[in-house]
Amino acid sequence: MKVAVIGCGTIANAAHIPSYLNNPEAEIKYFCDIIPERAQAAVEKYDCGVAVTDYHEVLKDPEIVAVSVCTPNNVHPVIAIDALRAGKHVLCEKPAARTYAEALEMQKVQHETGKILNIGVVNRFNDSVNLIKKYIDSGKLGNIHHVYVSFRAHRSIPGLGGAFTTKAIAGGGALIDWGVHYLDIVMYCCGDPAVRTVTGETFCKLGKNMEEYAYTDMWAGPPDYNGIYDVDDSVTGLIRTSGPVITLNGAWAQNIGVAEQYIDFMGDKAGIRLQYGKDFTVYTAEHGALVEYKPVFQMRDHFQNEIDAFIDCIKTGKKLPSHIDTVVITAQMMQAIYDSADQHREIVLD
Amino acid sequence: MKVAVIGCGTIANAAHIPSYLNNPEAEIKYFCDIIPERAQAAVEKYDCGVAVTDYHEVLKDPEIVAVSVCTPNNVHPVIAIDALRAGKHVLCEKPAARTYAEALEMQKVQHETGKILNIGVVNRFNDSVNLIKKYIDSGKLGNIHHVYVSFRAHRSIPGLGGAFTTKAIAGGGALIDWGVHYLDIVMYCCGDPAVRTVTGETFCKLGKNMEEYAYTDMWAGPPDYNGIYDVDDSVTGLIRTSGPVITLNGAWAQNIGVAEQYIDFMGDKAGIRLQYGKDFTVYTAEHGALVEYKPVFQMRDHFQNEIDAFIDCIKTGKKLPSHIDTVVITAQMMQAIYDSADQHREIVLD
Amino acid sequence: MKVAVIGCGTIANAAHIPSYLNNPEAEIKYFCDIIPERAQAAVEKYDCGVAVTDYHEVLKDPEIVAVSVCTPNNVHPVIAIDALRAGKHVLCEKPAARTYAEALEMQKVQHETGKILNIGVVNRFNDSVNLIKKYIDSGKLGNIHHVYVSFRAHRSIPGLGGAFTTKAIAGGGALIDWGVHYLDIVMYCCGDPAVRTVTGETFCKLGKNMEEYAYTDMWAGPPDYNGIYDVDDSVTGLIRTSGPVITLNGAWAQNIGVAEQYIDFMGDKAGIRLQYGKDFTVYTAEHGALVEYKPVFQMRDHFQNEIDAFIDCIKTGKKLPSHIDTVVITAQMMQAIYDSADQHREIVLD
Amino acid sequence: MKVAVIGCGTIANAAHIPSYLNNPEAEIKYFCDIIPERAQAAVEKYDCGVAVTDYHEVLKDPEIVAVSVCTPNNVHPVIAIDALRAGKHVLCEKPAARTYAEALEMQKVQHETGKILNIGVVNRFNDSVNLIKKYIDSGKLGNIHHVYVSFRAHRSIPGLGGAFTTKAIAGGGALIDWGVHYLDIVMYCCGDPAVRTVTGETFCKLGKNMEEYAYTDMWAGPPDYNGIYDVDDSVTGLIRTSGPVITLNGAWAQNIGVAEQYIDFMGDKAGIRLQYGKDFTVYTAEHGALVEYKPVFQMRDHFQNEIDAFIDCIKTGKKLPSHIDTVVITAQMMQAIYDSADQHREIVLD
Repeated sequence: MKVAVIGCGTIANAAHIPSYLNNPEAEIKYFCDIIPERAQAAVEKYDCGVAVTDYHEVLKDPEIVAVSVCTPNNVHPVIAIDALRAGKHVLCEKPAARTYAEALEMQKVQHETGKILNIGVVNRFNDSVNLIKKYIDSGKLGNIHHVYVSFRAHRSIPGLGGAFTTKAIAGGGALIDWGVHYLDIVMYCCGDPAVRTVTGETFCKLGKNMEEYAYTDMWAGPPDYNGIYDVDDSVTGLIRTSGPVITLNGAWAQNIGVAEQYIDFMGDKAGIRLQYGKDFTVYTAEHGALVEYKPVFQMRDHFQNEIDAFIDCIKTGKKLPSHIDTVVITAQMMQAIYDSADQHREIVLD
Repeated sequence: MKVAVIGCGTIANAAHIPSYLNNPEAEIKYFCDIIPERAQAAVEKYDCGVAVTDYHEVLKDPEIVAVSVCTPNNVHPVIAIDALRAGKHVLCEKPAARTYAEALEMQKVQHETGKILNIGVVNRFNDSVNLIKKYIDSGKLGNIHHVYVSFRAHRSIPGLGGAFTTKAIAGGGALIDWGVHYLDIVMYCCGDPAVRTVTGETFCKLGKNMEEYAYTDMWAGPPDYNGIYDVDDSVTGLIRTSGPVITLNGAWAQNIGVAEQYIDFMGDKAGIRLQYGKDFTVYTAEHGALVEYKPVFQMRDHFQNEIDAFIDCIKTGKKLPSHIDTVVITAQMMQAIYDSADQHREIVLD
Repeated sequence: MKVAVIGCGTIANAAHIPSYLNNPEAEIKYFCDIIPERAQAAVEKYDCGVAVTDYHEVLKDPEIVAVSVCTPNNVHPVIAIDALRAGKHVLCEKPAARTYAEALEMQKVQHETGKILNIGVVNRFNDSVNLIKKYIDSGKLGNIHHVYVSFRAHRSIPGLGGAFTTKAIAGGGALIDWGVHYLDIVMYCCGDPAVRTVTGETFCKLGKNMEEYAYTDMWAGPPDYNGIYDVDDSVTGLIRTSGPVITLNGAWAQNIGVAEQYIDFMGDKAGIRLQYGKDFTVYTAEHGALVEYKPVFQMRDHFQNEIDAFIDCIKTGKKLPSHIDTVVITAQMMQAIYDSADQHREIVLD
Repeated sequence: MKVAVIGCGTIANAAHIPSYLNNPEAEIKYFCDIIPERAQAAVEKYDCGVAVTDYHEVLKDPEIVAVSVCTPNNVHPVIAIDALRAGKHVLCEKPAARTYAEALEMQKVQHETGKILNIGVVNRFNDSVNLIKKYIDSGKLGNIHHVYVSFRAHRSIPGLGGAFTTKAIAGGGALIDWGVHYLDIVMYCCGDPAVRTVTGETFCKLGKNMEEYAYTDMWAGPPDYNGIYDVDDSVTGLIRTSGPVITLNGAWAQNIGVAEQYIDFMGDKAGIRLQYGKDFTVYTAEHGALVEYKPVFQMRDHFQNEIDAFIDCIKTGKKLPSHIDTVVITAQMMQAIYDSADQHREIVLD
């Protein structure tokens, strides 16, 4: 099955490309990037495929069955939609888009074309997350009334002044980049409940005076002090759903020197704290005694799981949990947080 | 200066009585409790005063200058108001009352009588809290945009089935009992800002099936399985003020086995995490370097500070930070959380 | 209810006497010991009762309802039997007797008189042990096929040369003194299964040359180098029952410097390691993941539980799990270990 | 000296082949495996020798002086015997065979042919084990009355459903695969005493429902759910010898989450705990003081030692401690454990 990778930056090299190479049925025919050097570097590094700079060229090739969209957020919708209309199956990196309206447009085209459109909500392919889902579905936690989501870092603004921190490109900051994963995990584990009310505030504080931003390390490239910084470096919110209430605190950067990155699922029978990207602890009571444990299990690479499932669903037609239909709910929720932050009022959705 | 203690339960014996005894100017003339044995026990234990069961008897005595009200919450208003009208100065335990309306009534009578009405928001006399206030007032933190309040315990429901867990007596659970202290610290340190919007949810889950509630220790007495449990064992909320946004999570009991009891003051220049009842850490940057430290200082007993200040302000007429005028703002905030939880909608106050 | 304590040594003072004093219904009328100073010391220390040296005097008093037998093992049978025949209820310290034959004789007299005869297998009143029993009875562990019992200490010979180390008095050493508790816990938790085969070896090695025995501390009194040391300081065995196979290793003293004192219950669904006298860990698998936890719960004093249950069963006639009928099975098992050690052959009992 | 390696699986590649390559006198002429790809892979990897699939071809070559037998257990006897009869010296991996009868047959042919037959009881070439043997032989421990052998793991079943877990191929499970090493160390260090009585039980519990077996890692290949699992995953036993009593507990897998893999040699003067494959601790008393220490020494690769000794003894005719004459005693002991487990009775051998 011939595939193409559109956008050859960090996430393509760290996740999509090696996973396609490990999948026995996939073959990467094109590495596409508007920066020619990046596309060419991939061809050389992986010793396969052709380097192109215009994704339309990829879409014209009838041999291409599927594409990964690994570009900045602002061009997710246009490329994904063009690909679907060209008859290709699409795995588009998260977030689906910068706004809820764009995500809905992508969903509409998916429905029209009938081609697959999955979003890179890779935690739905994470073994730890899926084990938690089994615990929840089995009734172990009872009714989950409250979920607390904490994605707080001390100094982790990515590529200050670049695509990540420019609202016109990324659509937002810590919430849309990190929060999307955490909220998606909550939605997935709790059965994708409907969103009822959303209140939130976002803060653009620590990165704003770029030259004064102190840090010890920076991912996604060095600072560009001539660039733009107009996104949320921290965020807070409270969301009511048809399932649990969700409270969230997140920060790429904050003046509290902690890394508290976890999700607390609080049920009336038991609770689970997931350490994001790692293992989790179950808290419950048995025979009147308090009990706490960390299940031990094999963690496969979740990106490999995601790519394998994508290739598989193209063959079988099976609808994956990362389908655009489930992802639009999180897009709606994040949009409402940004809207609420603008208006300083709660948004009612039901 | 002759004083009386009305209500001789836990907080009276642990805090008010020993602090009056240590104050060189105060003399306890009455121990009043509707349970005669309690009043009598205090007389014997402290070897002073007279035991009475009817507080009107205390209020009739012209020698009595001031009273401490240490009863359950439901009778705070009536006793405090009767005392003010009888010409006594009043130190009333926290929360001021079960509802905002009751607190406003207390404030009104204070204004009418001109007598002192302070509430036992004892953290306003805590050396750690006052040192944080100094840091904030000095501008060290810059603008504080967000405060996160966490008063989460694993299994700490007090006296299950008793006064603490009966709404008609206590007015509420974890929020009104513990949250009041945390929110009061935030208001105090941030200059008592006006409240604009409040959204919240409360949960009555773990104590509801009383016999199934597992615990290893219980404060405020053993469980009464024939009693009532109809209050919040956990709570979450998001509050916008004229100062910072406040996010809160609190629990007397939850199925997450942690004790996370702290307040994060997040400013754009620096931040402070206060470990409730203990010390605090300052996080900032200096010359591009990240900096973190715990100030070291003497911690005096904050209850002694509170009683000493009460006795002193009677003599000097000085208005204390625990005056009913400041405390009604927190009462309004807590009322709005309970109202929001009932309506599942945000309450707008400005 | 008037009771008497016969034998006023370590276990009487540490456990029986304080527990009777804490029980609201019991009153100690006699402290009996053949050493007059010991009986008198108890009268003075506890400020109650009468000191006597001859237990027949106690048994003649019609006011006495029940007695605790806290003497060395060799006189357990004669005193317990005399007491039963005098119409008294008896709580006799463990082991029931030095030999299985003696234990059977005690059981016979209990059946003839119909009076209560409980043995001080106090772990049957231990909260940790009872919680394990709940886990096992609930099916959590599945079928328990193997139990490993380890009661190994480095240097803990009690009162070298005294009653504990003299076979004619104690009946045995580490096995009868410590092993009895461990084997009793196994029997209790596994439903008192029938014993089928027993093989074992006992070793009298480290205490034999008394003056060469090195130690840092000695319980039950200082060494008497003119006394006798002819008991097992270590033991090993393998027992087949109608329930699990039991393997045991025990030592008062051994030339391996560890304190490994635990019981492993190995089931096909889950396992439990009990740290003797402390808490325990549950090991299992859930949804394919490995899981391990220590339940947290309140531990009451098990001696108090035992005495309270003894007083209660006198009033209600309820048969306790410490009844002589269950204890004889462990006595049979220990006898068979000693017999097997003598013959160096397995003993077949079924 | 030309040698051949028969069976090119894990142990051949990890131990025999590299050790022959490091020995200046040995030259590997054949890599023999019934799977042609394995034999060929060895030729390519080590860049020497010839790949063959039929070991008879090896035995016909008069240049071949010695062979290593590294096949599954079931074909150890036939290949070793054929090789001896063909005039070759043999180093056969442990266990010698699946049963005692097979081992005796091998011994018989060794005696008939006079060729060397050593078994891969590699711990007899382990520096730590040999140092312990020196301590014991020097009298440091006094008389060793008891040895406790613990080879307990949590989840270490090898190649579930494959050769290791199929009785017809391997002869047994945890006992024959792991226990053989531990029992061999005991026999070696204690002077190969005669076996007198053996009682034991084996358990086939955790691997039996193969798909329900939870694990985090599996050595010797992934599970084959269509394969066979009919061997002991755990074992216990008590053995009397002309030297010490031996108690053993072993498990490839058990529902107790510990890795307790050690041997305790308990003497009346001192004791030693050997951590299997690692170092050891000596416990003794000196001048009335308790003393404990870990000797520090160089650990050479014991497989290299074994191969070097094998090559050397071919030249010198020196009888090694790994001679079949000593190994049959352990084979007898293991056979008796399996027989005892079948009959649920002790086996008497003297």
